[in-house]
Amino acid sequence: MAAAAPPPPPTATPEPNMNPQTSTIGHPLFSRIRLATPHDVPSIHKLIHQMAVFERLTHLFSATESNLSSSLFTSPPFKSFTVFLLEVSRSPFPPSSLSQDSFTPLLKTHNLDLPIEDPESYNFTPDMLSDVVVAGFVLFFPNYSSFLGKPGFYIEDIFVREPYRRKGFGRELLSAVAKQAVKMGYGRVEWVVLDWNVNAIRFYEQMGAEVLQEWRVCRLTGDALLAFDNVNI
Amino acid sequence: MAAAAPPPPPTATPEPNMNPQTSTIGHPLFSRIRLATPHDVPSIHKLIHQMAVFERLTHLFSATESNLSSSLFTSPPFKSFTVFLLEVSRSPFPPSSLSQDSFTPLLKTHNLDLPIEDPESYNFTPDMLSDVVVAGFVLFFPNYSSFLGKPGFYIEDIFVREPYRRKGFGRELLSAVAKQAVKMGYGRVEWVVLDWNVNAIRFYEQMGAEVLQEWRVCRLTGDALLAFDNVNI
Repeated sequence: MAAAAPPPPPTATPEPNMNPQTSTIGHPLFSRIRLATPHDVPSIHKLIHQMAVFERLTHLFSATESNLSSSLFTSPPFKSFTVFLLEVSRSPFPPSSLSQDSFTPLLKTHNLDLPIEDPESYNFTPDMLSDVVVAGFVLFFPNYSSFLGKPGFYIEDIFVREPYRRKGFGRELLSAVAKQAVKMGYGRVEWVVLDWNVNAIRFYEQMGAEVLQEWRVCRLTGDALLAFDNVNI
Repeated sequence: MAAAAPPPPPTATPEPNMNPQTSTIGHPLFSRIRLATPHDVPSIHKLIHQMAVFERLTHLFSATESNLSSSLFTSPPFKSFTVFLLEVSRSPFPPSSLSQDSFTPLLKTHNLDLPIEDPESYNFTPDMLSDVVVAGFVLFFPNYSSFLGKPGFYIEDIFVREPYRRKGFGRELLSAVAKQAVKMGYGRVEWVVLDWNVNAIRFYEQMGAEVLQEWRVCRLTGDALLAFDNVNI
C-alpha cells in the first residue's frame, strides 16, 4: 500500500535526552540517521519488501532494485524523493564520516537492558568490514499547501525492522523529517495511517500530529489510469 | 485546507467527443488547459482564495502572491509543484500559441445552450487585449509509491470557478493530469476528498478512482511542527 507503516508505539518511559555517543551503561547500541545513497538501493528494496510483508500487502509489491534505482536519487536531497536510513552498530559511528553537505547525520546512543537479537542482520549489512546494520528507513518528498503558499513534506513510508521496534527509533525517524521541515521553513509534515491502528494513532498524536477524520484518499491506478491515455480531453 | 476541492458533478448526459475548435452550434465556448507560468500568480492566488471561500476555510488561508511566487515554478514542469490553468474564451485559441515543450495545451470547444454569465470575469482576465478568462486550475506534484517503485502524481487542488461548474471542466482538468501521468509512465494519481461530499465521490468513482476507506491523513503543523526545531533527536 506504500503508505506509512505503523511505527512502534512509544516506550512507556521515555528515554532520557542523553548526549549522543557518550553514555555506555548497560548494552549500548549506537544509531545513525543519514541520507541514503544509490549504494543503499539493495537495503531499501529489502526494507520495502519487509514492510509489504508486515502490512500483508505483498500482492501489491512490484518494486525492483532496478526501478528504485532509476526513480530515486534523481534530484538533490529534499527536492524530490528522499530516503533517510537508520543504521545501528555496537561501536560508535565516527563523528566525521558521511558528513553530507545537505544533511548532517544524526547520532545517538541507546542504552538497552538486553542486547538485540537480529537473526536477519546478514541481510542488512551493507559493509562487511563493520557490524553496521540497517534497521529502518523513512521515505519522504515535498508536498505543497496552497493555503499556506509553501511546501511541506509528505512521508510515504516509515519502517523499523522488527528486532528494533519499541525502542524509540520510529520517533527518531519521524523527528528527523519534522526537524528538517522546520529547518527548511516548510509548513507541514503529513502522512497517512490505517484507522484501526490505534497504537500508531496514539503515537502520532503524542508527537503533536492531528488525525484528520473527514478526508478520504482517492486513487486512480492500473487499467483505470491507463485508460486516460486514450481519453479525448 | 488546501486539499482537492469538490469538482462539479458530471453532467447527466456526457458531452460528445467533438473535434476541438471545430463545432460552433449554440453558444460556443472555447477552452484551453495550459501550464501556468510565473505571470499567472495573481490569478492563481485569487483562485486559491476562492477555493478557501468555497470550502469555508478562509481562516486557514495565508498564501500571498509573494510566497506563491517564491515556492512555485522553482523546478521544470512535472518535476515538482505544477499548475495547469483552465482558460475560456468566446473566440478560438490560436493553435500554435503557447506551445510549450513539455506540455501541448489542450484545446476544446463547448457548445452551451446559454452563454455563461461571469460577473467576476474582470478579476480573472490576465490579458486586457483579449476576452480570455481564467476559469479554474489544478495544482499537482510528483508523489512516490515504494511498492510500485515508481512516481505518481498527487493532486493538491482542483477548482473550477462557480459560473463554469457542471460543464465538464473538472473532468477535463483531472483527465489532463491522468493523461500526463500515463505519458510519463507513472503508476498512480491520488488526491483526497471529504467523506460527506457524495457528489464528488460519485464523480471520482465514475472517473475510475477507488476511494480508500481505511486510511486517515495525519498532519503535523504550526507550533507542534515548530517544536521539533528544539527536539534533541
